[in-house]
Amino acid sequence: MARQERAVQTRIAILEAAAAAFGERGYDATPVTEVYERAGVTKGALYFHFGSKEDLARAILDQAVTTEGVAPHELRLQELADILLLMAYRLPREPVLNAALRLSVDLPSQQLFGTRWPDWSDLLTRLLAEARERGEVHPYVDEAETARILVGAWTGVRLVTAGLPGDFDLVREVVALLRLIVPSLAVPTVLARLDISAERAATLYAEMTAKEGEDRGE
Amino acid sequence: MARQERAVQTRIAILEAAAAAFGERGYDATPVTEVYERAGVTKGALYFHFGSKEDLARAILDQAVTTEGVAPHELRLQELADILLLMAYRLPREPVLNAALRLSVDLPSQQLFGTRWPDWSDLLTRLLAEARERGEVHPYVDEAETARILVGAWTGVRLVTAGLPGDFDLVREVVALLRLIVPSLAVPTVLARLDISAERAATLYAEMTAKEGEDRGE
Repeated sequence: MARQERAVQTRIAILEAAAAAFGERGYDATPVTEVYERAGVTKGALYFHFGSKEDLARAILDQAVTTEGVAPHELRLQELADILLLMAYRLPREPVLNAALRLSVDLPSQQLFGTRWPDWSDLLTRLLAEARERGEVHPYVDEAETARILVGAWTGVRLVTAGLPGDFDLVREVVALLRLIVPSLAVPTVLARLDISAERAATLYAEMTAKEGEDRGE
Repeated sequence: MARQERAVQTRIAILEAAAAAFGERGYDATPVTEVYERAGVTKGALYFHFGSKEDLARAILDQAVTTEGVAPHELRLQELADILLLMAYRLPREPVLNAALRLSVDLPSQQLFGTRWPDWSDLLTRLLAEARERGEVHPYVDEAETARILVGAWTGVRLVTAGLPGDFDLVREVVALLRLIVPSLAVPTVLARLDISAERAATLYAEMTAKEGEDRGE
């Protein structure tokens, strides 16, 4: 492995260790010691890659808003659903995404770093505006308001189902959320063509990881 | 003022001071000193009423689930909407309710005290089951799942709109949320009779506070 590639791997290992710790204990309660021990690297290696615990949190948040794995679709509403479904599939499996939500929600880290909710909201607002121009959604749909509600509802469904006793699958919960909300947005001919299902989320994830493998030349 | 009444007032003042502090800074970052100074009482008075900071958090959470101000209605779906609308009106105005949500969401306090989401979820599940027995909702509505989604979505809408730049009114946001979701639940004849509006929330609150005044003999 080339030196540069090793450095990239080390950086990823540190970030994932930080994410796992922040996700389990919260930002404030996580000492930096725990991060480098968990990553199996030295204190020096951590501080070579990240100047401080704050930098770790910011680097995690920088990865929070992603549409990776969501292909363009002739229906903008399908793209919107795909983003929310794929994120539901990924979040419980990817410590960095889970930690980004935790950092946004907990008050101490929210007060230090803000959230990426405005970016999520802007992204969904744009998609809904395009969906309206194309006649996919009812003309009375307020895209900024609907985007806010979707970001909030998605986030809360994650928090509450993770906090309830029982083993809830986030994909199934987000499917249920979207099946409650999307019929109020989509015109009937579009609604009939949308795929809002747990299978869709699994397929999108499989395609994304296959493509990542190809990109690495596997 | 009788001694007993004074004691009740002191207890309320301490609880509200704790709630305001937990809501602003989070549970972990709030020292007990801040609570009794904020309440304008002595340390001794605080420990007379509450054995510890943990007790303050538990007393706040004990007030989290309430249907006060929601009158029985011939439509169970209206009762359900009323609960969510009135809570949206009250939460930004009542530090104890705001702090209960904060304690449930932040990881350190959630890990210490749990949440009251199961109680909220049970309450809404019961109402939805009754609504289904009465033919108010479509027969395919899964009441436990829908209740979970409603609790999650409500909570997340609160968190995200409080975290976004701009001054969002929680009542208007919850109205928007319910107007997106309720049409997927209610049969058309019931949907047409429901009042899901910001005015409804304000009226319910006015009636509740008037009734509280009467109960105190004002």
